[in-house]
Amino acid sequence: MRMRSKRWTDQELANNPHVIKDAEEKKGHWAEYFGNDHPIYIEVGCGKGNFISKNAEKYPYINFIGIEKQHTIIGIAARKAGDLPNLALIETDAKDLNELFEVGEFQRIYLNFSDPWPKRRNYKRRLTYREFLVSYRALFGEKGEIFFKTDNRSLFEFSLEEFSADKWLLSHISLDLHHSPYAAENIMTEYEERFSSMGMPIYRLEARFGVEPDPMPSSAVLPAADEDTETPLAIQAAE
Amino acid sequence: MRMRSKRWTDQELANNPHVIKDAEEKKGHWAEYFGNDHPIYIEVGCGKGNFISKNAEKYPYINFIGIEKQHTIIGIAARKAGDLPNLALIETDAKDLNELFEVGEFQRIYLNFSDPWPKRRNYKRRLTYREFLVSYRALFGEKGEIFFKTDNRSLFEFSLEEFSADKWLLSHISLDLHHSPYAAENIMTEYEERFSSMGMPIYRLEARFGVEPDPMPSSAVLPAADEDTETPLAIQAAE
Repeated sequence: MRMRSKRWTDQELANNPHVIKDAEEKKGHWAEYFGNDHPIYIEVGCGKGNFISKNAEKYPYINFIGIEKQHTIIGIAARKAGDLPNLALIETDAKDLNELFEVGEFQRIYLNFSDPWPKRRNYKRRLTYREFLVSYRALFGEKGEIFFKTDNRSLFEFSLEEFSADKWLLSHISLDLHHSPYAAENIMTEYEERFSSMGMPIYRLEARFGVEPDPMPSSAVLPAADEDTETPLAIQAAE
Repeated sequence: MRMRSKRWTDQELANNPHVIKDAEEKKGHWAEYFGNDHPIYIEVGCGKGNFISKNAEKYPYINFIGIEKQHTIIGIAARKAGDLPNLALIETDAKDLNELFEVGEFQRIYLNFSDPWPKRRNYKRRLTYREFLVSYRALFGEKGEIFFKTDNRSLFEFSLEEFSADKWLLSHISLDLHHSPYAAENIMTEYEERFSSMGMPIYRLEARFGVEPDPMPSSAVLPAADEDTETPLAIQAAE
């Protein structure tokens, strides 16, 4: 989504302490910047910042860095950042991650409602295309994890294949996030709030490398999405 | 689905040449039985046989073996088998595959609308549970492939995770098979015809091991499901 530049955007981006102007100089020094060695989670394409600022509020012992290439949009995200010490924002492109981080400097990537690039000939631009996955993997180092959600069915199908082709371990998959066991913990993006209120399903997955699969599938651990499909414990015992 | 035994079932199963009575004795000798060394594809849970008999008709140079544990149901499948020389049916359970086949004796498994076992405590009974995948893998030998489809969202989510945990390579995924590029080639089961006519989505995937991933994702090769999302070639050229 593109927006016309708002009059206050330049001023907000210039003055807001969450917006990192010399981000390349922080490469290798993010722990120093945050003043602690907490894990760092980044959101590639943080949009207006609802997701990342709510996460930063909810999880004070995680540092969050939001990356967004659209000038006006990240201006809005900056306004929402309040006085959260564990939140930083960078106006840049996903392609530039190498210039912002040393290998192993962050532990998780969120990809929320990334551009689906629906035309076939553009598949290499999708942020879950295997060449992107390879580059994320290189930057993660020994292990890493990506939390991905989208409303776009084709992008989700494509992403499942790409993660699999690059040998990531898939788990915690939902084809209808808002009616799943993951809904309770889910923090929505602005786009997600609007889109899901129309009743359309949201798809999500977690992808990891460098770790062993859990011995139990997620669905055997999580509370059931629809308790109707479960027999109450009292009846189970009597069966 | 269980059905009352039909009066003609026993007779059909006794006399129909497609129904293999001494299946264990064919172990290691299936090529001999079919009289050729064509690939062998098996369907675990072939139900009333629509899918497998139509496949056998369409692909005469593949041998098909349908396995079904329900007596009356496989009787119906036997009736449909006509005079197809490349089709065999066995009344038995998925757990008995080891007793029917030598390692490497078949090349593909179809799992169509397998019982979802929706209660969490029953997850080990689902035919895509990782212990089943490990046993299929052992029986395939060096490489193998499973084609899976279901109308059950939770079973599909579970299966994606299980295939991934056991390191199968996922491809050709659709979350709405009947409105996907795979629809044209799709052969429906009886259950699928009834279910999809109600407008519910069918999920499908292919899972392989022992092969390298294709360098191109399926979605970059296949015709688009929804041509509306594609720009006509003439316009693309002008862009």
